Order: sequence, then structure tokens, then C-alpha cells
Amino acid sequence: MTTTPGTPGTPGAPAPRTTWVDGAAGSGFDVDHLPYGVFARSGERPRVAVRIGDQVLDLSVVAAADMVDTHALFDQPTLNPFMAAGPAVWDSVRAWVTGLLTDETERDLVEPALAPVDSVTMLMPFEVGDYVDFYASEHHASNVGRMFRPDSEPLLPNWKNLPVGYHGRSGTVVVSGTDVVRPCGQRKAPADDLPTYGPSQRLDIEAELGFVVGVPSAMGERVATADFARHTFGVVGLNDWSARDIQAWEYVPLGPFLGKSFATTVSAWVTPLAALSAAWTELPGQDDPPVLDYLEVDGPAGLDIDIEVVLDGEVVARPPYRTMYWSPAQMLAHTTVNGASLRTGDLWGSGTVSGTERDQRGSLLELSWGGKEPFTAAGRERTFLEDGDEVTLRYSAPGALGGRITLGEVTGRVLPAR
Amino acid sequence: MTTTPGTPGTPGAPAPRTTWVDGAAGSGFDVDHLPYGVFARSGERPRVAVRIGDQVLDLSVVAAADMVDTHALFDQPTLNPFMAAGPAVWDSVRAWVTGLLTDETERDLVEPALAPVDSVTMLMPFEVGDYVDFYASEHHASNVGRMFRPDSEPLLPNWKNLPVGYHGRSGTVVVSGTDVVRPCGQRKAPADDLPTYGPSQRLDIEAELGFVVGVPSAMGERVATADFARHTFGVVGLNDWSARDIQAWEYVPLGPFLGKSFATTVSAWVTPLAALSAAWTELPGQDDPPVLDYLEVDGPAGLDIDIEVVLDGEVVARPPYRTMYWSPAQMLAHTTVNGASLRTGDLWGSGTVSGTERDQRGSLLELSWGGKEPFTAAGRERTFLEDGDEVTLRYSAPGALGGRITLGEVTGRVLPAR
Repeated sequence: MTTTPGTPGTPGAPAPRTTWVDGAAGSGFDVDHLPYGVFARSGERPRVAVRIGDQVLDLSVVAAADMVDTHALFDQPTLNPFMAAGPAVWDSVRAWVTGLLTDETERDLVEPALAPVDSVTMLMPFEVGDYVDFYASEHHASNVGRMFRPDSEPLLPNWKNLPVGYHGRSGTVVVSGTDVVRPCGQRKAPADDLPTYGPSQRLDIEAELGFVVGVPSAMGERVATADFARHTFGVVGLNDWSARDIQAWEYVPLGPFLGKSFATTVSAWVTPLAALSAAWTELPGQDDPPVLDYLEVDGPAGLDIDIEVVLDGEVVARPPYRTMYWSPAQMLAHTTVNGASLRTGDLWGSGTVSGTERDQRGSLLELSWGGKEPFTAAGRERTFLEDGDEVTLRYSAPGALGGRITLGEVTGRVLPAR
Repeated sequence: MTTTPGTPGTPGAPAPRTTWVDGAAGSGFDVDHLPYGVFARSGERPRVAVRIGDQVLDLSVVAAADMVDTHALFDQPTLNPFMAAGPAVWDSVRAWVTGLLTDETERDLVEPALAPVDSVTMLMPFEVGDYVDFYASEHHASNVGRMFRPDSEPLLPNWKNLPVGYHGRSGTVVVSGTDVVRPCGQRKAPADDLPTYGPSQRLDIEAELGFVVGVPSAMGERVATADFARHTFGVVGLNDWSARDIQAWEYVPLGPFLGKSFATTVSAWVTPLAALSAAWTELPGQDDPPVLDYLEVDGPAGLDIDIEVVLDGEVVARPPYRTMYWSPAQMLAHTTVNGASLRTGDLWGSGTVSGTERDQRGSLLELSWGGKEPFTAAGRERTFLEDGDEVTLRYSAPGALGGRITLGEVTGRVLPAR
């Protein structure tokens, strides 16, 4: 039997308190959240920050001023050194930051290191090692199966035995706010004899959650589900942009390649696992078939995170992460069960999050049922993405203070093909 | 129309001359080869070397002594800075090294920087960005199709229209000589109801050639086939270790994952494109169907490289690279046609190299026809790899001096599952 760390009561998690920072109390960025990111101001080198309310707290400045022994971890252009430092450091930094932001006597120390989030540029928060994308929503996988293989069982035989996943392109993982150029490539309609080259006509999004590895593992080693929180630093929002026409033509037999590799967007803010202590929830169920031993989890291994898919300012779907079949701890254990090593910065996506209802589907492919059932957003009929469309994914979860925390959003605009 | 660079007469390629280094003339490591690697000696930091005969030439030492302005590129633990410097630097360094090794008056400068290759440890020569594996041999893809889909056409409809490929795990690319632990995972025989967990029983190799990116490209940019040699630094031997039972169960619909991700081995020596000037050859033919414009190549775009697959000391196959359907320039153009960027250190494998004959097959899957037709090596019947087996891939190509160059070999031993 294994236990799932990251559940309420994680050792070292600070007790909830009240912040003195104006406007932060009760916001999605109160002291029960404290996500990390990397920011830059013109003429200054990038540094690590934590977000409180509508402000960024420059950790490199405040850690040096407070003579914190880990201050060098924050005067860095990525979170990787801090992420690699491991859970004891993550916990002590979180406790220290919580103290700074809740103890009014620290105001003189902290205030010079605060800046409005609108006054800085948020950068890609970590250097990505390997990027793996899973397919962990039963409703998403079933919807896709129904569309693409209407005469067969929607789920393939392996789907409930293992979290199906594949490697994506880590070099094209970009930070929220980056424009996405419509990709070109080969696509072939079933009625055509030969493929043609041109801009994708079925450009799509996939609303996912991403998980970021902090502590590496050695080749030949396996990471048990119970060791999830020892290796996983935190969570990002993730949009797995997809060109369905390119993907449909290329993907047999070795899987998606150019239909995905042009861009994957992650949020600028990484929510540490400690901020999700109130969000753990039971998985929907894995009894038929039961999972193999190495995939067993004990206790609440799912996450109760709400997602909103916003297209040109209008919410078009609300995928519920709690409906996901496979847990993040299972995805990590599966990734390493063959002895594959982990590196700091490895990123895995959950796969598209889709619930049972039409307005809970996390892709336009599903929302428009393969383009056959247009839906309305911002006053217009929609199927796939049009040039100029802006997509934003918003995420929220129960916080430890009784309200909700706002995870890093993911936004991007579609530019015409070049 | 496009032209294929890397063909004979590349500007800046030094004229063949005779080396003064004992034993190097006429060997596979004469001055028409000069591959690059990274070596270490006990107590010293890793540095960049070039190989001449049975010796390594420490480029950091000789470049500093000779006051070469690019000497800092060689006092490095990886080839990445040198690879990123681009073709003009690659050409001038090659011309300079050729001069040192052919001009007897340079002996006093060079000899202190030479060391027997057996006296140093060769390290992973570059930091891998993204790793993509292709499937570019028609004979290999057809063999696999015949085995796995006996009632259909061996090649899927997309295969001759695009170089099928997928992303692999860059974090588990290791240097020649690294032992490979037999991976565990899920596998299910067709007759079984449920999968089981355990060591792979169908562990295999794939004899491939690898190509390494030097010069990066921006997101949204495409690299034309004609720009292949502007971005590609060189070539490595590559063994894409494969667990066929794990792969067969997991790979639908998103492609191979754990069946491949436990290890990929590359040679310690990277052969620069300039050393392959005599190896370019015509592709076997791409007339039916003709390729789309962005995949067109002009002139000899294939490589006449011979491979030997050695199992426990005995050559069991001789896959001929010249039979590959898709050229490396086409694989690179395809990788970027959707605007995906390149990074220095990106690596792509050709896919298993197999010729028309049984003894030209580059995997044990094909050599033993799915395990049904055992073959003999070192006096024993074989199908898939057994614990303790040692596999070595050897590569050679025509050199510019009229003999053959010996590309970096790839070796690895199978350790029992843990």
C-alpha cells in the first residue's frame, strides 16, 4: 500500500494567517497560494518572485536583505535551482515568505521588494527538461474515440490499464502571453487522394494541467506513487495547442508530432504543491480493471481544480479536473517504471480535461464535435480557431484559508500563418 | 528547386593531406575524418577533443597555445558552444586542425596535447535539446508492417508522403559504453485478458544514424532542405534500445513511450558533416508519390554509410544506410515545417536502418522475425536480447582521401532488471 503525499497536513506547510499586503487577503493570491515565477524589468536581469495579491515580491532582494542562506537560489533566470533544492528547502522558503507577509513588523523589509505585477514582464518560469503529454481524462479519450473510431469501443484496451502518454517538444514550450503562429503542414481529407501543404484549418486548444519536476531521479530508479511530492515541485496551467488536420494525417503509427510541436503554452506562475493541500480529492474510481501494484494510490490522489476556457472573452467551457481518471502521482510513477530518469524541469501535461457535459469539454474538437456542431462565442459561430482569436485558460482551487486560489492563467493569441 | 549542401566541394572544406601522427594515415581516423568529442582524465575538467588515429588531441590546450581566437569553445564540458558557433567557425577550426596535423613543423605545439584514446574517458559529447526519432527505412517499416498488420498493406498511407517521426526522451540519451538495465513495465500477450508487470521479454536494439543540430532556428521559422548544412553539425551512431512487448501494448494511439524511453545510446564521437563529403549518394527514389515542395531535394541527399550490428563479438547484420528512403535534410525540413524551433543539441535519429536482405536488418525484431525465426550469434540461438549481451554498432563511410572513415561506434551491455 502507498500513501499520497501532498494531502492536507504535509509536514512543513505553514499554518494559514492573514497578510498585511493591501488587497491580497481573500484574493486568489493570498498567503495560502504564493506561486513562484520569474520576472524582469527593463535593464535588470531576470529574478525569482513570489506573487502576493497584485504584486510580485522579488525574492532575491528580500532574501539577501533578510540574510536567508538560500538567497542565491532566487537571483536566477529560472526556477530550476530552487526546484532542484527539494522539499525541505521548498517548505522552509514557504514558511519564511508566509512569515514576511503576515508579520506586520516585516513591512519595512518587504515593501521595497514589492512591485505591481503589471509593471514587470513575466518570463518562462523554468527550463523544461523533457515534456510528456498524457491522455488522462476518460471523457476526453472517449469523445475522441467516438469521433475517430465510430464503429469501435471508444476507449482502446490499454486505456484503463495505464496512463497513455507520449513525449512532446520541450523546445517549444512558451510562457503565457506568447502569440502562436498558425502552423503549416501536410493534411489530407479522407476524400482526397494525396495530401496538400498549407496552414492548418483545424487549429485547436487543449485545456490541461501541467506538473513540474523539482528533484531528479537516477536512471534505473523508479519513483513510487508515494514519492510524488518528493519529486514534484508544482503545477502550471497548460494549453497544448493542436493542429487536428496535421495530427490526423501524421499520427499513425508513432503518434502526434507536428500537430503538437509548434507550441505549448504554460502559465507564468507555478503553484507549489503545498498550496494545493485543500484541493486533493478522491479519484472517480479505478476498479474495473484494478490497477497494477505500481500504480496504486491510497487516499485522495485527484485534484479538485476548476478550469475555464475563455474564447475572445467568453467562457465556452468549464472542465472539472476532479473528473480525471488517472492521478498525477500515477502519471509520474508510470513515466519512471521502466527506469527512465527525471530531470529538474521535466514537465508533464495531464491531457485535455473534459467532464461529462458538453460545456465541460476542454477542446474545440469536442465542443464542436469535430467541426460538425458549431457553438457560439462572443456572438459568432465557432468550430476551430480563427486568426486573431485569443484563448485564455483560467484555473482555481480550494485554498487552505477557506476561499479559492487562482492558479496561473494561460493565454495566447492566434496569428495568421506565415 | 533546392540544392543539397554537404556534397563534395563544400566551401571551406580543407584539401586532403597526409598526417605526421604515427599510425593515423590510412586509419579510419585520418585527417579526412577528425571527429569531435568530450573527454576527461581523473582530476581534470572535461574538455573538447578531436580524434586522430588512436589519439585524442586536446583542442583546449592546443588552441590556447596557438592563440586561436575560438579557444574558449573547447574548454567546455560539451560540444554545444562550438556547435552553436556555426559553419564558418566549424570550417575554420577544421582547416586549422588539419594544418596542425599535416604540417610537421607543428609537432612541438601539438604533441603535448595528444593522449592515447585508451588513457581518457569519453563523455556524452553534447547536451541534448529535443530528441526526435524517425522511421525512414522503407524496408524496416515494411517488415514491421508485415509482422504487426499481416492482412494490410505493409506501409501506412502517410509513409511515403512524409518522414514519420515522434519525440523521444532526451534525458535518457547516454554515451556509448553505458550499461543498459533491462526495463520493467506492462506487457500483455494477445491471448491474455489483462496486462502483467515485469521485465521486458522482448528487449531489442535499433541500428540508426543520429544527426545533431548546431545552429538554432526561431519559432515560426522553417528550415529548408537546402539549409540542412547550415544547421546540422554532424553525425553520431545511435542505438534506439526498444522493449517490444512494452511498446506493443502501450503505443496506441499516441505512439511509443516507455518501450523506448529507458535508454538511447549515441557514439562518443561526432563526425562533422565536412568529413562526409565523399559519402553523399542519390536517394533510392521518391517518384510514387512525388514529395511535396518543402521536401524536395536536388542532388545526392542520401548517405553511403555501412553499418555493422555486432552481438557478443559476431557481426549479425550489415544494414546499408544508402537504402534509406528519406534523407536527413528532409527530416530536418519536416521537423520545422510547422514553425517548430531548433535548439543547439537537438538530435534526430534516422529510424532503424534495414536493407532488402535478411542479413541487412537493423533490429532483432526483424532478424528473428518477431521471435519466430531464431538466428545464431556467437554459437547460440537468438531472438531478443539476453542479460549480459553486448551490442556494438559500427559505422564506416567513404573518406575524402580514398579510404574509409570509421564513425563513432555505439556499444552497450544489457544488465538484468532490478
